[in-house]
Amino acid sequence: MEGAAAAQALSRIGLAGLAVMGQNLALNVADKGFPISVYNRTTSKIDETVERAKREGHLPLFGKYTPRDFVLSIKKPRSVVILVKAGAPVDQTIAALSEHMEPGDTIIDGGNEWYENTERRISEASSKGLLYLGMGVSGGEDGARYGPSLMPGGSHQAYLNVRDILEKVAAQVKDGPCVTYIGEGGSGNFVKMVHNGIEYGDMQLISEAYDVLKHLGGLSNSELANTFAEWNLGELESFLIEITADIFTVRDRVTESGELVDKILDKTGMKGTGKWTVQQAAELSIAAPTIAASLDSRYMSGLKEERKNAAEIFKKAGLKGNLPKFSIKKKRLIDDVRQALYASKICSYAQGMNLIRAKSAEKGWGLNLGELAKIWKGGCIIRAVFLDRIKKAYQRNPGLTNLLLDPEFAREMVARQGGWRRVVGFAIHSGISVPGMSASLQYFDTYRRARLPANLVQAQRDYFGAHTYERVDREGSFHTEWAKLARKARV
Amino acid sequence: MEGAAAAQALSRIGLAGLAVMGQNLALNVADKGFPISVYNRTTSKIDETVERAKREGHLPLFGKYTPRDFVLSIKKPRSVVILVKAGAPVDQTIAALSEHMEPGDTIIDGGNEWYENTERRISEASSKGLLYLGMGVSGGEDGARYGPSLMPGGSHQAYLNVRDILEKVAAQVKDGPCVTYIGEGGSGNFVKMVHNGIEYGDMQLISEAYDVLKHLGGLSNSELANTFAEWNLGELESFLIEITADIFTVRDRVTESGELVDKILDKTGMKGTGKWTVQQAAELSIAAPTIAASLDSRYMSGLKEERKNAAEIFKKAGLKGNLPKFSIKKKRLIDDVRQALYASKICSYAQGMNLIRAKSAEKGWGLNLGELAKIWKGGCIIRAVFLDRIKKAYQRNPGLTNLLLDPEFAREMVARQGGWRRVVGFAIHSGISVPGMSASLQYFDTYRRARLPANLVQAQRDYFGAHTYERVDREGSFHTEWAKLARKARV
Repeated sequence: MEGAAAAQALSRIGLAGLAVMGQNLALNVADKGFPISVYNRTTSKIDETVERAKREGHLPLFGKYTPRDFVLSIKKPRSVVILVKAGAPVDQTIAALSEHMEPGDTIIDGGNEWYENTERRISEASSKGLLYLGMGVSGGEDGARYGPSLMPGGSHQAYLNVRDILEKVAAQVKDGPCVTYIGEGGSGNFVKMVHNGIEYGDMQLISEAYDVLKHLGGLSNSELANTFAEWNLGELESFLIEITADIFTVRDRVTESGELVDKILDKTGMKGTGKWTVQQAAELSIAAPTIAASLDSRYMSGLKEERKNAAEIFKKAGLKGNLPKFSIKKKRLIDDVRQALYASKICSYAQGMNLIRAKSAEKGWGLNLGELAKIWKGGCIIRAVFLDRIKKAYQRNPGLTNLLLDPEFAREMVARQGGWRRVVGFAIHSGISVPGMSASLQYFDTYRRARLPANLVQAQRDYFGAHTYERVDREGSFHTEWAKLARKARV
Repeated sequence: MEGAAAAQALSRIGLAGLAVMGQNLALNVADKGFPISVYNRTTSKIDETVERAKREGHLPLFGKYTPRDFVLSIKKPRSVVILVKAGAPVDQTIAALSEHMEPGDTIIDGGNEWYENTERRISEASSKGLLYLGMGVSGGEDGARYGPSLMPGGSHQAYLNVRDILEKVAAQVKDGPCVTYIGEGGSGNFVKMVHNGIEYGDMQLISEAYDVLKHLGGLSNSELANTFAEWNLGELESFLIEITADIFTVRDRVTESGELVDKILDKTGMKGTGKWTVQQAAELSIAAPTIAASLDSRYMSGLKEERKNAAEIFKKAGLKGNLPKFSIKKKRLIDDVRQALYASKICSYAQGMNLIRAKSAEKGWGLNLGELAKIWKGGCIIRAVFLDRIKKAYQRNPGLTNLLLDPEFAREMVARQGGWRRVVGFAIHSGISVPGMSASLQYFDTYRRARLPANLVQAQRDYFGAHTYERVDREGSFHTEWAKLARKARV
C-alpha cells in the first residue's frame, strides 16, 4: 500500500479544516502550483473544496477522506496546515493526524491560538519527533484566497521546509512577500494577537472619526464616503480606510431607503485576541490604553438596552441632549479629524510594538520589529502605507524604545497635535465619546512629560503603607512619618 | 502533654506571620480582650511582638516558638490567621501549621491573595477536614492596629467561629463594624482586589487634580493643602483626601527648603492587585477604563529616564513646552476640579462595582454590593463619606445595573459635568495629561449614549470577515457583499 501510494504523485503539503478560511488558503496554495491534499471531518466540505478547485481553474487540490489517506498522500518530510477553531479542536485534529505522521514531519496551526497553547503543543510534538509552527494568518477570507499576511513562529526547520510555498501564497508588496520567520515558540501567535489588538484600535479610531464628522460636522453618508476616499489618497491610505469609504456608499436594499450603515445595530462582536492583548499588556507592565479603549468600547456597545435606559435616566436627571455645539467650519473639522486619527493611530501602533518588544525580551525571542511592520504592509487587515514608515523607523534604529521617539514620527506628532487637541476637546464639550482618540492623546501627554504627578502617589503610599519613596536629588530609599510631621506643621 | 496544655489557659485565636501588618493585627485582637498566640518563622519577630504587647498595655498575647506549640495553644475549634507574602509562602505556612491542626479547625489567610489560590486551598483544606477563609484586610499598618476593613470569604462556619473577634477588631462606623461575611470561595480576595483597583483609581484622580491645580492654576503647596483640607469637609471627604492635605504641609527636612512632596521622585511602585483587576475586567467583559488608566499611569511613571528623553526629543521636534494656557480664575478652576474629581470618582466606583457584580454572577457568589460599600466606609484606604451613599443606592435597588443609573448619582453627574468637561478640555489644550479623569468622562459619554458608532465597526467586520450584523429595524443576522455593492454604487 505504502509503496503504491508513494508511486502516485504525492502532494507537496496538506491542509485540514475546510471552513471558509481553510478552503481559501488551500485554493491559494494550489493556485500557486503546489499540489495540496485537503481533509475535513465533515466530508461534504471536502467535496465542496474539490468542486471549487475545479471551478476556479482545475487547481492541483486533492480531497482525502480519512486522516491516514490524507497524511500518506503528502510528500516527506510532510507539512500539514490545520485551520480549525482554536483550543480543543486543534488538539483533537493534531491527535487524529499525528498518529500517521513520522519524525521530521511538521504540523502548522494557522488559527488565532493563545501562544501558550502553541508552546505546549511544540513540546508535545517534539516528543514524537514532529516539528511545529503556530502561524498567524491575517487578511480575512479574501486574504486567505489571494494573499494573506503570514506570521509563522516555532521550529525554524519547519519554516524552511515550506518557505517557498508561504512566500508564494502570501501577499506581495514592493519589498517582498508578507511572510517571515517570526521567531521561536509561540511568537507567531503572539505577534498575530497584537496585530489583532492594533486592528481593534484602528477600527475604533475610525468609528470615532465617523461619529465626530457625522454628529459634530453634520456630514452625510455621501460626504463621509468622499472624505474617507480622499483620506485614502494620503497618509491614512490603508485597507480599513478604503473599506470604510466603500461602506458609506452601500444603499439599504431591505427598506430601499438610505444607506445600510445607518440600519446596522450598534452592537459589536469580538473574538478572544483583543482581550488577550489587553491582559498581556497588564502582565508585561506596558501601557496600551488605545487598544484597551477599543476593547472597552466593544463591551459597552454590547450593552445596548442598558445604554438606551441610561440615556432616558440622564434625560430625566436633567441632561439636555448633547451639550451646546461649537461653531466650526466643516472643512476645518475634516482636516482636524484626519490629523487626530493619524496621531491617535501612531500612538496605538507604538503601544502594540512595545508589547511585542517587551514579550520578545521576556521570552528571548529576538523579534525584529521592522520586519513585522514589513509583513503587515500587505495582506492583513491593518495593511497600510504608513507601515512602511514604521518599518524604516525600526530599521534606522532597531533599539527604538518607542515609535513616538523616531524623529520623523515625533515631528509628525508635533505637527498634528493642534488639530488632535481641537477634535478631542470639541468632542468632550459636545458629549460625543472619543475613548480611543482620547486614550492616545493622554498616552502622548503622559509619555512626553519628564515630570508626572506620581510623586504625590508615592507620598500617599508611603503615608499609609510605609512603602518608601525615592528622591529627585539623592540616591536611596526614604520613609517619612507623614502624619506626625503634618500634625506638627499645623501647630 | 495535650492534657497539660488544655489545663493552661488556651488562646482564643492564633496569628502566624509577624511583619508589621501581622504584628499590628495581633495587637489589635489582644487589645480587644481576645487572648492570642503568635508565631513567626524568624523568632526575633515573636520577641518583638511580645515586647510590643507588654509596652502597649500588657495585652493578652503569647509568643509560641514552634508550629506545634503555636497550634496546640489555641482553643478548639482552632482559628489561625496567616499574614505572610501571597503565593508560595502561604502554602508553606499552611503546610507547617496544618500538620498539627484537627478537623473543624480553620485557616484564615489575610494576605492580598489571588482568589483562585484561595479556592485551591479551600479544597485542599477541606480534604483534611479543615475550614478556610481568604480574608482581605485593608487599612495599611494603622488600620491593622486600630481597626481595618475586613473582607472574609470562604467557609461560612469558619466565619461564625471568629465573627465576634472580627466584629470587635474591625473599624467601627455608625452602622456597625466594617466586616461582613462576603461569600463563598475566593470572594473575599476578589472583593479586596477590586477595592485595591478602586484605590489605584482614587489615587490617580487625586494626583491629576493636583497636577491641574499646580500647573494650570498655579497653586502653591500651601494653597493645595488648604484646598484639599477644604474638600475634605464636603462630598469628597475621605481618608485619601485627608492625607493628601497633610502631605502638602510637610516640609523637606533633608534640604530644609520647601515641601517634601516636590523632592519625591515621580516613579510609582505597585503590587499585583491592580494588574489583576484590569485583567479580570477584560476577562469578564466589563469596561474599567479609569482603573486601567491608573495602572497604566503607574507603568508610565516608572519610565522616568525614557520620559526625560522623550521630553527632549519632542522639544527638538518643535514642541513648545506646554501649549498656550487659557486664562481661568483660580477660584473657578478649584471648583471645577473638585467637580471633575468627584464625577470621575463615581465612574471609577461604578466600574469596580460592576466588576464585582459580574464575577459574583459568574461564580454564583450572590454578593451584596450595598454591604460591601458599607464595610468600606471605615478602616480601609478608600474609606469615604460617599460610600454611605453608594450603600444606600444599592439598598434602594439591589439590582442596579450601574451606579450611574441611581437617580441621585445621575443627578450629581449631570450637575457636575460642566466643570468636569471644562477641566478635561482645559488640560487637553494645555498638554497636561489627565488619563483618569478623561477615561471616566469617556466612560460616562459612552455609557449614556443610546446610539454609538459601533454600527460602522460591525459593517467593517462583515465586510472583511463575513462576521454578519444585526439591524435596528428587524430581527435576524445579516450579511452583505459590501465590496460588490460598493463597486456598483460607484458606477
